[in-house]
Amino acid sequence: MPDPRVAVVGATGAVGPEVLAILAERGFPAAEVVPFASARSAGSRVGFAGEQLEVRELTDDSLAGFDLALFSAGAATSRRYAPEAVKRGCMVIDKSSAFRMDPQVPLVVPEVNPEAADSHRGIISNPNCSTIQLVVALKPLHDAATIKRAVVATYQSVSGAGKAAMDELWDQTKEIYVLGPSEPKVLPKQIAFNVIPFIGAFKDDGYTDEEHKMWNETHKMLDPDIKLTVTCVRVPVFVGHSEAVHLEFERPLDEAEAREILREAPGVMVVDKRDPTGYVTPKEIQGEFAVYVSRIRKDPTVKNGLAMWVVGDNLRKGAALNAVQIAELAHERGLLGRKILA
Amino acid sequence: MPDPRVAVVGATGAVGPEVLAILAERGFPAAEVVPFASARSAGSRVGFAGEQLEVRELTDDSLAGFDLALFSAGAATSRRYAPEAVKRGCMVIDKSSAFRMDPQVPLVVPEVNPEAADSHRGIISNPNCSTIQLVVALKPLHDAATIKRAVVATYQSVSGAGKAAMDELWDQTKEIYVLGPSEPKVLPKQIAFNVIPFIGAFKDDGYTDEEHKMWNETHKMLDPDIKLTVTCVRVPVFVGHSEAVHLEFERPLDEAEAREILREAPGVMVVDKRDPTGYVTPKEIQGEFAVYVSRIRKDPTVKNGLAMWVVGDNLRKGAALNAVQIAELAHERGLLGRKILA
Repeated sequence: MPDPRVAVVGATGAVGPEVLAILAERGFPAAEVVPFASARSAGSRVGFAGEQLEVRELTDDSLAGFDLALFSAGAATSRRYAPEAVKRGCMVIDKSSAFRMDPQVPLVVPEVNPEAADSHRGIISNPNCSTIQLVVALKPLHDAATIKRAVVATYQSVSGAGKAAMDELWDQTKEIYVLGPSEPKVLPKQIAFNVIPFIGAFKDDGYTDEEHKMWNETHKMLDPDIKLTVTCVRVPVFVGHSEAVHLEFERPLDEAEAREILREAPGVMVVDKRDPTGYVTPKEIQGEFAVYVSRIRKDPTVKNGLAMWVVGDNLRKGAALNAVQIAELAHERGLLGRKILA
Repeated sequence: MPDPRVAVVGATGAVGPEVLAILAERGFPAAEVVPFASARSAGSRVGFAGEQLEVRELTDDSLAGFDLALFSAGAATSRRYAPEAVKRGCMVIDKSSAFRMDPQVPLVVPEVNPEAADSHRGIISNPNCSTIQLVVALKPLHDAATIKRAVVATYQSVSGAGKAAMDELWDQTKEIYVLGPSEPKVLPKQIAFNVIPFIGAFKDDGYTDEEHKMWNETHKMLDPDIKLTVTCVRVPVFVGHSEAVHLEFERPLDEAEAREILREAPGVMVVDKRDPTGYVTPKEIQGEFAVYVSRIRKDPTVKNGLAMWVVGDNLRKGAALNAVQIAELAHERGLLGRKILA
C-alpha cells in the first residue's frame, strides 16, 4: 500500500505531542500527519517535524479517508469516536483503557506479543503505562524461568494522570513557597511534597482499577498464570514511572543470569552497578525509549526469588512510543490496508 | 528516685528539636532538660516549653551528673560519646544505628517489646525510622496469625536523611523554577521531582544497609522467623515515611479481622474507607504520634495474604517520640536509677 494518512487524536494533551514527536523522530512513512482534538482545541497549532500544524476538530466523519488514527484522548473519546473511524476504514491504535480487555481487541506491546496484532478487527489497544514497562522487563525473565508470583509497588509520575495533573504539581509546589498550596483539583489530595496511594477508583476488593489493570493486562499479554499483586502510588515526579518488583520463579534464575538476559532483551537497558549512583531514577531517563532495569538482586525470602527496580518514561514507552511501535508493526505486516471486520 | 536530669544530644539537628518538643508536650517529669550539640552549634539557642535554652558543647565529661541522655546526632557521635556517658552513670537512649544490633543492647519499640528494656546495661537503642512504623503495624497481626513473609516497598521522606537533606529538597525544588537545579550534595542524585531507589550504602548482596536494617531489626524485636524483603526508596516528601506492605500469614486472617485488630492495637490508627480520599498520605499526618494504616485488603495471590499501606511521622514515632516513650518506660520501671553494668 502507499504511505498511510495518519491522524493523531488528542494532539493537545499530555501524550499527543509525544506521538507527533516520535512519528517524526522515527521517520514513520506517512503520506500526511494531521492532529485532531476536541472542538475546544481545534484551530490551535502543534509542532510536527519542524512545522506548525493546525489542529482539526474530531467528529464522527473527520477520520474518513485516513488509514490510521492514534488515539490518546481518554476512554470516553475512544469509546465514542474509535468505532466511527473503524466504520470508515481507518484503523485505530488506542491508548485509552476503553477496549483493552475486549476479547476481540488485541492488546499489544511489540517486544512482548507482536503476533497478537494480526488478529485485529480495526482496533489495537495499548496497555496502561505502568503495565507496559513492567511486561517489557518481565517477558524475557518469564521465558527463562516462568514467573509464579510478582509483588509490585509503583512510584507513578503525575503525567500518567494527564497534562492538568502536571500543571497541578507545578503550581501547587510553587504556591508552597509563597502562601501555601491551594486545594487539589485534579488529583484527590495534595501531590506537592506528598505521595498518594490511590490511582483511579476503588473496586469492591479494595484494590484500585489502576491495580486491576496491571494484573489483567499482564494476564492478557504475557500469561494468565502469573499471580500479580500491586500497590499503585502517585509520586511528585513529572514524567517517568518507577516500580519496585519482587518476583518468584518456577525454576532457579540467579541474578547474574537475569542481568545477562535483560541486557539482551529488546527494549531493555540495564544500569546496575553497586555504587551510590549505579541505578536509574525517573528524572534521568525522561525522553528515553527503553525500559531501564536496576538493582537486580536475589530475593532470599522465597524459593527462586529475584528483586529489581524498573523505570520507564510513561509518556514515551508507556504511551506514545508503544503506539508508534504498534503503527510500525501494523504497517510492516500489512495490517493497515486489510479489510476491517469490526 | 527524684525527677531525672535529662540531656538532649543533637539538639540542633532534624530530630533533636522534636525530642525537646515531645518531652514538653508529654510533660516528661524532668528536674532539668539541657540541650547538647557539637562545638560548632554550642552557644546557639533552641526552644523548650516556651523558653530558649542555650546549647552546650558535648564532651566526654559533659554528661556527668545527668541521669538520662537522648542521643540523636548520628552513629559516629553515639559511638564516641554514649559509652562516656554510661561510664559516668548516665543512661543513654540512642537513635543512631551504632548499637542496634549489639546483643547486649536492647532495641525497643514500647508497643512491641517493652520488656526488652529491662535487661539494659546503660544503653537502649531505637530502631531505624522505617522499621519502627512497620513493626508497630505488624506486631498485632503477627500475634493473631503469624507472619511468614513480608514484601515491603518504602516511600521515605528526606528528613530521614537529616536536616541538610530537607534543605536540599527545598532549595533544589526552588531552583527548578528559576535556573535549573544545582548538583546534589547531600543525597546521591536530584531528589526534587524525582525518586531515588537507594538509601545508605550497598552491601555485597545488592541490598542497601537501610534494607538490611529493616529485616535485622524486625528479627531482633519481633521474630527472627519472619522473612522480610524490601526495596527502600527516597521520595521528595519532607516528613513522613510510607510503606506498601504485602504479607503472607501462617493462619487465615481476613481483612475485616485485620482491620479490627489494628483498630485496637496500641499506637495504631486505621483510616480505611474505599472512597477517593479514604486513606492517609504522609503530608496529612505530619506531627502525629500514631502509625496510620490504610488500604487493608486481601492479597489473593498467596495463601493467607493481606496487603496494606502504613504511614508514620519519621521524626516523631520514627525517632523522637519513640525515644521519649522509651524514656518514660525506663523511668516508670525504675531502670534509670539502676546501677549501670556496662
